[in-house]
Amino acid sequence: MAKGPGMVYCLAFDADDTLWHNESLFAITQEQVSNLLRPYVDEATLGSQLLKTEKRNLRLFGYGVKGFTLSMIETAIEVSQGRVTAREIQTILDAGKGLLSHPIELLPHVRETLEELNGSYNLMMITKGDLYHQESRIAASGLGDLFSSIEVVSEKDPQTYRKILTRYHLEPDAFVMVGNSLRSDILPVVELGARAIYIPYEITWEHETADASQANPELWRQLASIRDVPRLLPEFLP
Amino acid sequence: MAKGPGMVYCLAFDADDTLWHNESLFAITQEQVSNLLRPYVDEATLGSQLLKTEKRNLRLFGYGVKGFTLSMIETAIEVSQGRVTAREIQTILDAGKGLLSHPIELLPHVRETLEELNGSYNLMMITKGDLYHQESRIAASGLGDLFSSIEVVSEKDPQTYRKILTRYHLEPDAFVMVGNSLRSDILPVVELGARAIYIPYEITWEHETADASQANPELWRQLASIRDVPRLLPEFLP
Repeated sequence: MAKGPGMVYCLAFDADDTLWHNESLFAITQEQVSNLLRPYVDEATLGSQLLKTEKRNLRLFGYGVKGFTLSMIETAIEVSQGRVTAREIQTILDAGKGLLSHPIELLPHVRETLEELNGSYNLMMITKGDLYHQESRIAASGLGDLFSSIEVVSEKDPQTYRKILTRYHLEPDAFVMVGNSLRSDILPVVELGARAIYIPYEITWEHETADASQANPELWRQLASIRDVPRLLPEFLP
Repeated sequence: MAKGPGMVYCLAFDADDTLWHNESLFAITQEQVSNLLRPYVDEATLGSQLLKTEKRNLRLFGYGVKGFTLSMIETAIEVSQGRVTAREIQTILDAGKGLLSHPIELLPHVRETLEELNGSYNLMMITKGDLYHQESRIAASGLGDLFSSIEVVSEKDPQTYRKILTRYHLEPDAFVMVGNSLRSDILPVVELGARAIYIPYEITWEHETADASQANPELWRQLASIRDVPRLLPEFLP
């Protein structure tokens, strides 16, 4: 049971790279595109150029696979100086579609841990990206019923988390965010005085890296696996 | 004041082509792309091929400008049999970006009507499409503060409306949807026993057309302009 006098804690989980594989699929896709474009550009140059394009387009596209695909096409045109062929661009587009239709692969221990936590805590999912794609993935994951609420958001900043706390009438003390991104899941939550659990994924998109040295160390913990969450909570919760 | 013993009615508004221009911008963009591709294909063939591509991709992309842009690129490759150049594809991509960054143009009488209704009714916005793009447009419209809640959804079917009614503890009798799409704003709402007001826009995307002859005529009305909504409500509400 959750601690506190009748207090039900809300445990909110990020989805991509916290519940299921995501960044590794982007990396594989990027490698395929890199191989395709080898006649025009080396892998390292393509990688840095793609990141530049993605960051430039973020303000227009937001997060998600469709924006990533458009940025890959734009980068291909740029690095090939307009020599990339229509067929090669179609291959890039197909790679993006492959990402959109890729089956969900849950990370180890996800289902059993969520089922264990489900009795004692109010579980929420907070994920950013394309609304339509994320809803498709939540449906495909088979995890939807374990969450009492699911929020797909366009950005994970303190303002977004504040809105969610307000919407669900939650005090910061009653809220714990679990995720793989210091920038999106940990720092903005700690900034509000709520708690966060950082579980790094095998790869971090460069845009999501952050320096956590200024964050209140009382309010966040790092774990190696989601399976360690239930054991941590009794000592970590207020 | 709203009728009924203490009942506060919820008036929900669609956004694209109900509050601001949208489909006309898509049409202008499509015409630009059509001119660009004139060396490969005539306008009518391009139009029908694009609609086919969009419908085929809808299951993967959902609604919104990014999916539209990817479908335009795919169609250009297809109709040119791979002869379209990288520069032409970049032009299509730029046209998509132009749509994403286009300033919001409110439809006539929108602001004054919403301000008039705001005192007596609970106003909601329910719009489908790219989450990030719709949020950007809502912010740019300056209308956000007039709505007590805003829902960006991936599809407007009876299930979606049922979820919203449940989420806000609304009986169908207390809910009226206002929008320009028979398929998305009127039929699914009437199916639930709630009310709807249909205000056609100058253009309707072919995918949004529908036959309303089977819908309960007691539960929906057609108006020429949003300015007529306040006058209609006293006789239309239960």
